[in-house]
Amino acid sequence: MRADARKNYERLLTVASAVVTEEGAGASLRDIARRAEVGLGTVQRHFPTREALLEALLRTGFDQLTAEAAELEGAGPAGDALRTWLRAFVACATDYQGVIASMVAAIEDPDSALHASCVAMRAAGARLLARAQADGVARTDIDGTDLYALAGALAWAGDQPALAARADHLFDVIADAVLTR
Amino acid sequence: MRADARKNYERLLTVASAVVTEEGAGASLRDIARRAEVGLGTVQRHFPTREALLEALLRTGFDQLTAEAAELEGAGPAGDALRTWLRAFVACATDYQGVIASMVAAIEDPDSALHASCVAMRAAGARLLARAQADGVARTDIDGTDLYALAGALAWAGDQPALAARADHLFDVIADAVLTR
Repeated sequence: MRADARKNYERLLTVASAVVTEEGAGASLRDIARRAEVGLGTVQRHFPTREALLEALLRTGFDQLTAEAAELEGAGPAGDALRTWLRAFVACATDYQGVIASMVAAIEDPDSALHASCVAMRAAGARLLARAQADGVARTDIDGTDLYALAGALAWAGDQPALAARADHLFDVIADAVLTR
Repeated sequence: MRADARKNYERLLTVASAVVTEEGAGASLRDIARRAEVGLGTVQRHFPTREALLEALLRTGFDQLTAEAAELEGAGPAGDALRTWLRAFVACATDYQGVIASMVAAIEDPDSALHASCVAMRAAGARLLARAQADGVARTDIDGTDLYALAGALAWAGDQPALAARADHLFDVIADAVLTR
């Protein structure tokens, strides 16, 4: 991709992320084009369908989580690193709450365009978990997929209007279930 | 309701419960009539709409959970009682997984036909929780609504094909978060 095309692509992704966070998985390419102040054709050149756009968004989110896990691996106490990463994971899953189910499905579906990012992200989280387990500060009978399930479940709860105000509290309850003291 | 009408009603509810458990919230009244071997008109006399049927199902489930909590209040160690009840709650939420969101919303919505059952059930769970907290076996910073959120979150995870096999394990992780040892 040429430098200016890459810049447009990244700008579109940023706008799309904001629109999907606000409107959910049903956000239209037309809305994204309007907000980005470009034509619909420009959006469609990068993302032929809404599914392609959602995949690109999630893939970007997963890749950021993988990078964040790698950074955290070298830094500070293992328990704190895992808690910080788990919070970032829940925040990502909450932003894209309308697509959490497809996010979870991708991990078991090698044909999904998200599969590789998803597996890399789970592996990165599992490494943080293993370090915390080795340090005796995390429950030893859980694995990377459990972190995935717990983050998805928390994002689900955060998406319920009657429960949204408790999201931080529920995060603490679940993080304490993972991180033994 | 006359005795035979009551019997028909209860039979329809049993059939409807099986159909909704299999097919989710989209189950049609026509399918339920066919399975119950009655005419569609008979179903519609009891449940004019699918929403009315789902409400009746959930209300029945909530009322059973309330009754179960009352029985458990007098029986055995407080921690075991709470864990048993929480498992029953998760099973109910999992059976009606397609309608978990409306179940959760009802607790904050006094206009919902489910509101009273929902509030009674939360109160019954909160009493079990309070007893376990008083005995020093449950986390003290959670309440009946948190149990609600955690059960709903577990039901959500159980509904994801990639995670369903882990449902029992995830239950243990979350029950251990509630029940301190």
